[in-house]
Parts: sequence; C-alpha cells; structure tokens
Amino acid sequence: MEPIKKLVLLGTGLISGSFALALKRAKLVEHVVGVGRSPENLQRALELRVIDAASQDAASAVIGADFVFIGTPVGQMGALMQAIGPNLAHGCVVCDGGSTKQDVCALFRAHLGGHLAYCVPAHPIAGSELSGASAATYGLYEGRRVVLAPFAETDLSVIERVKALWQACGALVYEMPAAEHDGIFAAVSHVPHLLAYAYMNAVLDKPNAALCLEFAATGFRDFTRIAGSHPDMWRDIALANRDAVLADLRNCAARIAEVTVLVERADAEALRSFFERASDARSAWGKTSSGFRK
Amino acid sequence: MEPIKKLVLLGTGLISGSFALALKRAKLVEHVVGVGRSPENLQRALELRVIDAASQDAASAVIGADFVFIGTPVGQMGALMQAIGPNLAHGCVVCDGGSTKQDVCALFRAHLGGHLAYCVPAHPIAGSELSGASAATYGLYEGRRVVLAPFAETDLSVIERVKALWQACGALVYEMPAAEHDGIFAAVSHVPHLLAYAYMNAVLDKPNAALCLEFAATGFRDFTRIAGSHPDMWRDIALANRDAVLADLRNCAARIAEVTVLVERADAEALRSFFERASDARSAWGKTSSGFRK
Repeated sequence: MEPIKKLVLLGTGLISGSFALALKRAKLVEHVVGVGRSPENLQRALELRVIDAASQDAASAVIGADFVFIGTPVGQMGALMQAIGPNLAHGCVVCDGGSTKQDVCALFRAHLGGHLAYCVPAHPIAGSELSGASAATYGLYEGRRVVLAPFAETDLSVIERVKALWQACGALVYEMPAAEHDGIFAAVSHVPHLLAYAYMNAVLDKPNAALCLEFAATGFRDFTRIAGSHPDMWRDIALANRDAVLADLRNCAARIAEVTVLVERADAEALRSFFERASDARSAWGKTSSGFRK
Repeated sequence: MEPIKKLVLLGTGLISGSFALALKRAKLVEHVVGVGRSPENLQRALELRVIDAASQDAASAVIGADFVFIGTPVGQMGALMQAIGPNLAHGCVVCDGGSTKQDVCALFRAHLGGHLAYCVPAHPIAGSELSGASAATYGLYEGRRVVLAPFAETDLSVIERVKALWQACGALVYEMPAAEHDGIFAAVSHVPHLLAYAYMNAVLDKPNAALCLEFAATGFRDFTRIAGSHPDMWRDIALANRDAVLADLRNCAARIAEVTVLVERADAEALRSFFERASDARSAWGKTSSGFRK
C-alpha cells in the first residue's frame, strides 16, 4: 500500500495520536502534522514523536496534505471543516473519529459538499479514561472495532484505502450507514447512560437517599458506574443522536412498564420468563469475544 | 459475653456456615448442629468443622437449642418455622438471614407468634457467587453490614445479644423497621435488577440485536452485569418486596419519562443539570466507604 505523504491531525489527542503512531509503526505515513489549541499538548506530541510538526492553524496546516483526520469533539468539527474546505487538495482523504455519525455526516455535507468523494466518516471504538497526546499509544486499535459510514458519493477506492489503513492499525473494520451506526450505539451505549442517570436521580429523590446509598453494594456500583460520566459529553451525545436515543428510550420505558405490571399482578411465571430471557442473553454475551474482551 | 451452648443452623450454607465459623473463632459458641437436605453438603460441613453434628430433621434438631439461625431461601422458612415451633425451648433466640424482611416478619408472626420476644429477623449483607457449606469462611462478615429488624415484642436484651454476636463476627450492625429495610433494598438492589432485565429485553427486541451486542462495550458490560442474575431468585425477591419495588419502579419510570422529554425538547441546559446531579452524586458515592469497599 502507498503510504500517506502528509497526514494532518485536527485535534492531537488519544484517538488521532494513536492512529498516527500505528500508521508510523506500519510505515504507512511519512510526515504527521498535529494541529491543536494547546501549545503544551503539541509540544508533548512532538517530544513523543506522535507528530513531526505542530500548528495552531488548521486552514494552513492542511495545504498539501493527502490525508486529514478530524479527532476533535463533534462540536468543533463544523468550524474546522469550514476552515479547511478551501485549502484541501483534490483527492485529499478526510476522515473523522466522532462517536455519532449522522450529525457528523450532515456537517461533511454542509461544509465539504464538493469533496464527499474523498470523505469517510468513521468511529474508532476505543477509549480510555486518559486524554491528550500523551495518552496516545501504538497498540490502541489492536483488535478494536472501527465503523466506517461512507457517503453514497464516496469513491470505492477511497473507502478501500481507509479500510486498509485502519486494518494496518490492527482494527476490525465494519462498514454501515450512519443511521444504522447511530441506532446501534443508541441501544448499547447512549440509552444505558441515560437510564443510569435517571435511576440515580430517582434514588437521590428519596427522603432517605443517604441511608440508601450507605447500603448500596456491588450491583449498584456496576449498574451506576456510567452515571458518573461527564455531563457535558453525554448531553452532547444525547442531542446529537436524538432520534435514535428517543426511539430506544421509549422501547425501554415500554419494557419497564411491562415488568411493573407483572410485579403488580404477581405473575410469577411471566416474571420468570421475562428475567430468564434477559439472563440467558446476558450470560451468553459474557462468553462472546465482545463480552470478555471489553 | 455468655457463649451460645447449642446453635442450630437451618440450612447449612455460605451465610449460616460463615456465621458459625466466626462465632467459633470468637469462642462464642460451644456446639453447632447443621440441618440440611443434602447429605453431601452436611458431610462437607462436618469435615470443614463448620458444624459439629448434622441432622436432616429440623424439628428434632432444635430441641435443647438456645440459638436457631434460619439460613434457607425465604421460600422455605415458613414450613421450617412451623416445624420447629412446638420444640423451641423457652428463651431460644431465633434469627434469620433472608434478604427481604417484611415477608419474613409475617412468617415469624404466623408461625412463631408466641415466641416473638426471642425472634430477631436479620439481613447480613454479604454474598458471593459461591454457595453451600464449602463456601463458608471465617472472615465473611468482617466490615460487612447486618440489618436487624426486631419486633416491637422482641426483648431488648435479646436484641442486644444478637447485636453483640454479629459485632463479634466483625459486622457493622444496624437496626431499623422491616419496611424501611425493604424500601432501601428495593431502591439500591431490587429495582436496578428489574431495570437491567427490562433494558436487556429491549435490546433483544431490536431487529438487529445480534449486531448491537457485537458493538456493546464496557459501559454495557457493567450496566447489564446484574441482568445475568438468577431468574428464580429475583422473581421471588420482586414478589416478596412487591410494594416497595413497585413504588421505586414508578419513581424511576417518572425520571426516565422526564429525561425523554428533555431530549425531545433538546433542552440542553436542563439535560446537563439532570446528568450533573446524578454524576456528582455517583462520583461522591464512589469515594465513600460503601463505594470503594464493595
């Protein structure tokens, strides 16, 4: 495979930096330019050789690039796309790492509408409590999943190239429409966060909340772990993926209403079946590669 | 403190066996009789010196006992109480280890109504994936919580004695009405299980459930861990603690309906506050003794 000559990272952090490091190790990139707002973070990225050059100006940094990776929070992507649009070389591939895809696709369409043949929205599913360039590691994508959500307009050869690059980073690459991606992540990630927040608030509403929390044990600990997640980040995700989140929230509410009725009626047999379906599926999942690896 | 002369365990397993072992180590029991249905389990308990004698007949085993601990599932307690009632010596203390208390209190009232001065319903909050006499350990109750839910009729000296015995096992002992106990455990244990089962069923309803589960990661893993719990056990608990469970399920459903409306309206500020209240409380809890020890 032909290496990338000039890779520009818009946002130089864990996700983009680990992408650059993995490509460097695979000898699939010659020169990496890191763009960011924090001089300290860029300096650290240079010292760690995550990047070879640093810039605080996205628009000028992308001149002459053949690959741009947008690794910022989704909220900053629109302005960056607008800034770089006029300076993108013909054929320069643009990829992102955002965790919602329909909203990012809309930004690509709005700001890089004439360049979609070379755009491949993506979601590398890898994270860590750590962030910043100093958290970037060579092996972050080994065995992790990356979803590509290309446009109908995207050149097939560009999709194949992006896929091969991620595979060279060790990732398992999937391709699916942005709406399907967002539906999946609403179901298995976004809605659990909202349910955990809602549950935690219901406990806090109780007059004896402090005493309740004193007796909360391991089941509570694991069930509510994600309720400790960052409020800003999850507000943004809930709103970015609003339609899919609402659909799945309503499905869950219906199932909760159902189990409430079964308890009300003391319908032991139906309760048992309801629990057993869930328990069997959860136990089976725990034995799959998804269940034990993550 | 005067040691127990003859302690009878009705059900010889993790909870009752660990109680016996801790009392033995503290030199607070002279003779332990284990009652159970499985000869193999009783044999193992004898070999491990959890018990000093074994019996398969509860009614005859309690003759001459000064302390009876009922460590069976709640479903078996009524018949056992009925069987032992006529043979209980005056002043023999009766304690249980069931995880719901209002239903157990009702069984005590129904079957040992003339003996309530010596009855102390209790919930030792300690568990393990393991069960049976071979799972019993000396230190199970070190630093763990035990709730006593005595009757208005219970002698104060009996309550003090049971409290002191549990403290000698290393436990932190709380005393509260059975209804308060059940309300607390509905909130922090029973309802999370029902929500996790309901959520898991909602995921399984999706046409692309298998694909969703393939992308489920650490958040999903922890949130759904308790959905893998035993269906029979949780059916019994949900029904035994029905009123408290229903009240808390409805509170949670109301909070889920609220967050659904906030997402619908894209009310970013209110969503942020909703998430932040939960996140702050969960983070604070994680730093408490309850949060990090369990």
